[in-house]
Amino acid sequence: MTSANPLLTFADFPVGKRFDFPGRTVTAAEIVAFAQEFDPQPMHVDEAAGKASILGGLSASGWHTSAIMMRMLCDSYIDQTAAEGSPGVDSMEWKRPVLAGDILSGHCRVVEARLSRSRPSIGIVRFIAEVTNQRGETVALCDYANMIRIDGGEAAAHANG
Amino acid sequence: MTSANPLLTFADFPVGKRFDFPGRTVTAAEIVAFAQEFDPQPMHVDEAAGKASILGGLSASGWHTSAIMMRMLCDSYIDQTAAEGSPGVDSMEWKRPVLAGDILSGHCRVVEARLSRSRPSIGIVRFIAEVTNQRGETVALCDYANMIRIDGGEAAAHANG
Repeated sequence: MTSANPLLTFADFPVGKRFDFPGRTVTAAEIVAFAQEFDPQPMHVDEAAGKASILGGLSASGWHTSAIMMRMLCDSYIDQTAAEGSPGVDSMEWKRPVLAGDILSGHCRVVEARLSRSRPSIGIVRFIAEVTNQRGETVALCDYANMIRIDGGEAAAHANG
Repeated sequence: MTSANPLLTFADFPVGKRFDFPGRTVTAAEIVAFAQEFDPQPMHVDEAAGKASILGGLSASGWHTSAIMMRMLCDSYIDQTAAEGSPGVDSMEWKRPVLAGDILSGHCRVVEARLSRSRPSIGIVRFIAEVTNQRGETVALCDYANMIRIDGGEAAAHANG
C-alpha cells in the first residue's frame, strides 16, 4: 500500500491481457542451492550426474523453475496488483530441462475472468504462464488462478476488519 | 548410486502403495527467506501484512509449500528410487494457509502405474501427495507423475550412454 500508483484491480485483467516477464539467467550455484534444500536428486546437485542423466546437464528442479516463474509473475504484475493469493494450479508442465546458464523469460496472459460466487469483493482471474529459454523453447507452462480484489481500497479495508 | 541398498524400481510402485512423510516445522525465518527470493507478496514477508490478510498470519508462499512437499517426497522414497524426474503436475491445490510454526507431515500414494509408450526402459507412476498440518487439516494436495526405471542397473547404463 506504499505504492505510488494505485493498485491494479479485477477490471485491469480482461481476457487476453498479457504481461511480459523480465529476462533472468539461471546459475549453477542457485540450481544447487535450491536443490540441496528442496530436491536433492543427483541431476540437480551434481554436474556429472546431470550430464549422465536424460536431462543432459546440471538442471534445475522443476519446483525451482516454478518458483522462478512465480518471481517473474510478481515482477510483471502481482507486485502492483490488489491480489489475494491463489487457490492453486490447474496444471504445471515442465516441458524441457532448465540447465545452468539458461536465460529464461516468457509471459502470461489472462484466459478467464469471473466474479467469485462466495466472496463478492473479489474476482477470480485465470492465467496461462509460459516460461521460455534463450532459444525461444518453452520450458514450463502453467495454468493457474489469482484472486484479485474488485476495488483495491474497499476490499483492503474489509480484509483488515 | 552410492546407496547400500538396491534402488527401488517400477515394480516397487503398485497402485495403492503409500509412503509417509517425516514431520517438519515451518519457521517464520524460512517463510520470509523463500518469499524474498521468489514470491515477495506482503503476506509472505511481513507478519503484520499476513495478519491483515485473508490468510490470517505470516504464511508460506504456495510454491514454498510445494517445495517442502518435494523435499518430503525425496526423503520418503525418491532418494532410494531409480527415478528420472517428472513431466509435471496435473494439479496443485493450496487448500489452507501454512503459517509460521505449523508442523507439516503427510503421505503420498500411487494411483496409477503404466509403462511408457515411447521409452521401454521406464514406467510412469502417478501419485497423489497430501500435506497436512498439526491439526490433521490438508494444506496441499498434488497430483503428479514420476518416471521410474524398470531395471535400475540396465537403464542407468542406458542413461549414461
